[in-house]
Amino acid sequence: MDGTGDRPVTLVDAHAHAWSPKTARARFREGLAGPTAGVAAGHTQANLISVPADWAYDMLLFCQRNPQPCPVLDVTDAGSPTTVLADGADLRTDLPRYRVWHDGELVEEPTDVRARWRDDLVSFLLGCSFTFEWALAAAGVPIRHLEQGRNVPMYTTGRPCRPAGRLRGPMVVSMRPVPPEHLRTAIRESSLLPAVHGGPVHCGDPGALGIEDLGRPDFGDPVDAAPEDIPVFWACGVTPQAAVMASRPPFALTHAPGRMFLTDARDEQYRVAGVD
Amino acid sequence: MDGTGDRPVTLVDAHAHAWSPKTARARFREGLAGPTAGVAAGHTQANLISVPADWAYDMLLFCQRNPQPCPVLDVTDAGSPTTVLADGADLRTDLPRYRVWHDGELVEEPTDVRARWRDDLVSFLLGCSFTFEWALAAAGVPIRHLEQGRNVPMYTTGRPCRPAGRLRGPMVVSMRPVPPEHLRTAIRESSLLPAVHGGPVHCGDPGALGIEDLGRPDFGDPVDAAPEDIPVFWACGVTPQAAVMASRPPFALTHAPGRMFLTDARDEQYRVAGVD
Repeated sequence: MDGTGDRPVTLVDAHAHAWSPKTARARFREGLAGPTAGVAAGHTQANLISVPADWAYDMLLFCQRNPQPCPVLDVTDAGSPTTVLADGADLRTDLPRYRVWHDGELVEEPTDVRARWRDDLVSFLLGCSFTFEWALAAAGVPIRHLEQGRNVPMYTTGRPCRPAGRLRGPMVVSMRPVPPEHLRTAIRESSLLPAVHGGPVHCGDPGALGIEDLGRPDFGDPVDAAPEDIPVFWACGVTPQAAVMASRPPFALTHAPGRMFLTDARDEQYRVAGVD
Repeated sequence: MDGTGDRPVTLVDAHAHAWSPKTARARFREGLAGPTAGVAAGHTQANLISVPADWAYDMLLFCQRNPQPCPVLDVTDAGSPTTVLADGADLRTDLPRYRVWHDGELVEEPTDVRARWRDDLVSFLLGCSFTFEWALAAAGVPIRHLEQGRNVPMYTTGRPCRPAGRLRGPMVVSMRPVPPEHLRTAIRESSLLPAVHGGPVHCGDPGALGIEDLGRPDFGDPVDAAPEDIPVFWACGVTPQAAVMASRPPFALTHAPGRMFLTDARDEQYRVAGVD
């Protein structure tokens, strides 16, 4: 999950969480532009980043070298708007909203990128922490930002990603306040989902990650913690957007914050099997 | 782990299992050519495959699309014989023995590839099932082929890997007979090591994978099973060599079967943390 400070538009359709992924994609294709939190419950959502083929090796290597923030679920063939993760989907139309980047600068946020598409674009679909939020909630861990109707807070850290070719940039993390009695469960449940960021990168001290003020996230909304809560930090799918900003490839497309791609995959497919 | 039917040469130095990875690499650099089973116990061993930069994207994508047989631990920059996984190591000299491939054909098996090195070679280090054998043994699971002093048996399956660019080929699996009372532990312990092939791809019926005769492995040695043992199949690091044979890149270097690269990493680094 990722986002900026913009307040999410509440989905009008109260049945959105019961939509199939296919229905959700069709609604977004028709123009619905809202955020995807809670849509098609139990189905895996994904971050999108599309770069010219000339940059695809650097991006794939960047993801391989930084698997916690950039867990790759699928990579398309150059120019193809389809993915094995979603039958009949079109990556150019089926996300609620996109971001278009020129030389590392955000230039527009359209709801359809057919006019911006290029035949040399390679698209990366990366795991999203919405997936482990379901697992945490199912295990009884309170999710403060959802309780408070807010986007998750995200912070640019002082921890650099391992560079790959021309790509470099800081790791971005999301933060969830976790009551101490739920900490072990939160660590366990997210650790069992390595394909969607896995276990936390840090628990406790924001300063250890170079974060100065939890009340002022770089993306998303601040969240109110209970007095005893421990701040828990997970690697975040905004990291590739931070790499685009830092590395300035000539062109890139991404999803807009909180407006993820709905796959047909089920969250439990990404859970390490055979452990319980 | 991977191998052909050649009988492993027993390492003369009985202290090999107590060597540090650095000492082991120095011995191999000096010319020791034996297999690496049991060497530098508890340290992660890796499959090597080096391809020209022109083929690196296809190889990285092949690995991403087939993570069970091809779990990537590191990818070098083009031409570099060094890796972050082993301080001071030289990938051209520090493996016991190599294989050189021209157009998908095995042409020689030298103990040093400095004379064959090219400035455009990108090297992939992939997880090896030696790692989960330690975890299984530590959890009390008998490892039949080690009890019998043999290489693990490996089979080319009828299951195709998902192709990537010009690379395609069948999945290769290793097989270990597991007593029924140890099956749950074997599945659990290997599943917690997704970076080294993870849990089994199949338990029970060889025919389900297109394997006709367990007594005639395609690589390695046949192993004797106890009557009640269940054959358990794991994805195998020989798979990229099968892809080289099937896809015929103009040039490739790999390790020779059973002669792996010794990294400084410890096996437990690759275990999913926070679960116990």
